[in-house]
Amino acid sequence: MGNSADKIKPEVRALRAYTLSPDRARVKINQNENPWDAPARIKAETLRRLEARRWSRYPDFTAASLHARLAEFSGWQTKGIVAGNGSNELIQALLMVTVGPGKRVLICEPTFALYRQITTVLGGEVISLPLTLELSYDTDALQRTVRDLQPDVTIVCSPNNPTGCVLDGRDIRALLESTNGLLVIDEAYHEFAEHSVVTLLPDHENLIVLRTFSKAMALAALRVGYLLAVPGLATEVSKAVLPYNLNAVSQTAAEVAVEMYEDELRPLVRKIITERERLYRELSTIKSLTPVPSLANFIIVKSAIDPKQVFAELLKRNILIRDVSGHPMLSDYFRLSVGTPEENDLLLSALREICG
Amino acid sequence: MGNSADKIKPEVRALRAYTLSPDRARVKINQNENPWDAPARIKAETLRRLEARRWSRYPDFTAASLHARLAEFSGWQTKGIVAGNGSNELIQALLMVTVGPGKRVLICEPTFALYRQITTVLGGEVISLPLTLELSYDTDALQRTVRDLQPDVTIVCSPNNPTGCVLDGRDIRALLESTNGLLVIDEAYHEFAEHSVVTLLPDHENLIVLRTFSKAMALAALRVGYLLAVPGLATEVSKAVLPYNLNAVSQTAAEVAVEMYEDELRPLVRKIITERERLYRELSTIKSLTPVPSLANFIIVKSAIDPKQVFAELLKRNILIRDVSGHPMLSDYFRLSVGTPEENDLLLSALREICG
Repeated sequence: MGNSADKIKPEVRALRAYTLSPDRARVKINQNENPWDAPARIKAETLRRLEARRWSRYPDFTAASLHARLAEFSGWQTKGIVAGNGSNELIQALLMVTVGPGKRVLICEPTFALYRQITTVLGGEVISLPLTLELSYDTDALQRTVRDLQPDVTIVCSPNNPTGCVLDGRDIRALLESTNGLLVIDEAYHEFAEHSVVTLLPDHENLIVLRTFSKAMALAALRVGYLLAVPGLATEVSKAVLPYNLNAVSQTAAEVAVEMYEDELRPLVRKIITERERLYRELSTIKSLTPVPSLANFIIVKSAIDPKQVFAELLKRNILIRDVSGHPMLSDYFRLSVGTPEENDLLLSALREICG
Repeated sequence: MGNSADKIKPEVRALRAYTLSPDRARVKINQNENPWDAPARIKAETLRRLEARRWSRYPDFTAASLHARLAEFSGWQTKGIVAGNGSNELIQALLMVTVGPGKRVLICEPTFALYRQITTVLGGEVISLPLTLELSYDTDALQRTVRDLQPDVTIVCSPNNPTGCVLDGRDIRALLESTNGLLVIDEAYHEFAEHSVVTLLPDHENLIVLRTFSKAMALAALRVGYLLAVPGLATEVSKAVLPYNLNAVSQTAAEVAVEMYEDELRPLVRKIITERERLYRELSTIKSLTPVPSLANFIIVKSAIDPKQVFAELLKRNILIRDVSGHPMLSDYFRLSVGTPEENDLLLSALREICG
C-alpha cells in the first residue's frame, strides 16, 4: 500500500540533481583544484598521525583541535568557527537554520549552483540578481535590492564561481549596513585574490564567511570547509551540523595543512596567481577568444566558436575544461582552471589550434 | 543594523545542541564502537591506496565504486544505494526531502536522539510512542498508530539504540502494508542481531534501510553510512545529499572493509556477540543490577543505585560508560558497550565492587 513518491516534497521532485559529466583527461582543469598534489610533507605527516590512531573510535564530537588551529590561522576566535565536511555542508547547515517557506535568499547569478538548490529543497524563495553584461557584480542593483527587499539571507561568492569577479570590501560593508538579514561571503577562492573580509567580523554580527580546503589548500579529496561568524551565530548554525560530521582523517589533514601552509602551500598559490596572469595575457592574443579578468584560480572565456565544440575538441586532446554554457548569461563561455605551467602550455597550444 | 539572531528559525533557537560529555578513560564503552581497532590488514591496504592518490583532486561526485561494492555486499541493486558521511547524513537527507511544516514523523522513544532533532529543525511534527515498560517495541500500539495517524515517515531503529530491542520481520511487514508513508529501519546494529530487512526491499517501495560502518565495521573515525531503497526513492533522497559528500579516504576504507569483511571483521562480530551474552549473564548475578536483553553490541542496565553515581564510580576506575538517565523512561538505567573480554572483566569486577 502507498506510493512512496507521494511523500517526497514536490519542490524536490521537480529538481534536477546537480551532476557533473564523468569525463576524464590527462590535463584536468574543470574543477578549480590545486593542480599540484598536496605537498609530500603534508601527506606524509598526515599518514603518520593516522596510522597511530584507532579507526574504530569516533572522531571528536566537534572538531575542537582543528577549530583552535583555524582560529590562529584565520585571526578569528575559536568559538566563532565551525568546520564542516566541505563548505557545502556549512552552506546547507546555515540555510537549514534560517530558510523555510516564506523566507527569501538573494543570490547574484551566474554563481555556484548549490545556493539555489539547497534554498529550493528547503522551500525558500530564491531572488536572483543578474551580474552585469561584463560579468561583474552589479553593485548598485545589489545594494538597492538588499535595502528594498530585505532578504533573509544574501549570499555573495567572492571571487565568484564561475566568473572570477569580486565584490570589494567597501561594497560589502555597505551591504552589511543596509540589511537586517544575514550576509554570507563565500571565500572559497580568497587566497587567489589575496583578500578576505574576516577583518569585518568583529563589527558585523550579521556577517558569515565561508572557506574551503578544496582549492588553494590542495585537499579536495578530503572535504574540509569552515565557517566564521560571531559565536552566537556560529552556535546556531552548528545545531544543524551533524555530530561527528568531520572524519578523523580530514581533521588531521586539515590541521597539518594549516601548520605547513606558509612553507608548503603559499608558494603554490603564488605560482597559480602568476600563471593566471600569464594565461589571461596569452588567451587575449587568440583570435576568437576573450578572457574575463579573474581573481580566482580559474578564468572564464568568451568564445566566438561554440563552447561545446571547444570543450569537445579539447577533450579529444586529453584536456578537460568546464562547460558552463548552461548557466544564465554564459551560453558563449567556457571555464578553465589554472593548471601547472606545463598544463597551461598544452592548453594554450591546443586552443590556438582550435580557435586561432 | 539588524539583529542576526532574528534570522534563526525559532524552533532552532529553542533547540539544545546534541552533545556528549568529553570524558576520557582507558576502558571506553560509551559509544558502541567496535572495541578492537580496524584490523591491521584493512588499515594497511587503505593507506597503500591512499598514498597513491592525489589529495588535491575531488573524490567521485557520488561514490560510484563504493556503491557497486555495497550492492554486492548487501544483496541489493547499485541504483538503490546512497553512501553518506555517516548514516546521520542520510537520515538528514531523507528528512530534508520529506519533512517540513505540516509533516509528521513517528518515532518510538527512547531512541537515537537525531531523529527528533532533525525533524524539529525542519519544522516537522514528532509523534512519539513510548516503548513498553520492559523497554521493547509496543507492536500493537505502533501498528495502530501508523494505521490511524498515517505519519508521513515512521522511523524504527532495530536493534534500538539505547535499549537493544528489535522489531521483528513479521511486524515490519505488517507496518509496511498498513502505511502509505515511508518506513525507515535503521539497521546500525544489525550485524549483532544477525538479521536484516534488506530482503523486503524488492516488494516494498516505501521501505528505507539505513546502515553504518561505525559499529561492526570498526570505522567510526571515518564516518561512512549507506541507505538502501528502491532506485526511484534513492534518487530523490540523493538530491539532498551534497555533491562530494564522501571524502576519498572514507570511500577507500569502506571498500577495503567490505572486501575483507568475512576474514577480518565477521570474527570480531562473533566475539562481540559471545561477550554480550556472557556480560548479560554476569550482570544478572550482580545484586542491584538488572540488565535488559539486547541484540546489539551494548546492554542497558537497570540499577538500584543512582546511575549517575555508577557512572562517576566507574569513571574513577578509568571506565567510561554512557549516562542515558536523561532519556524518557531511563532515569534508572545506564548503558554500556560490549568491550574486549579483558575490558568486560574490568567492568564486571568494578561493578561488583560498586553495586554488589
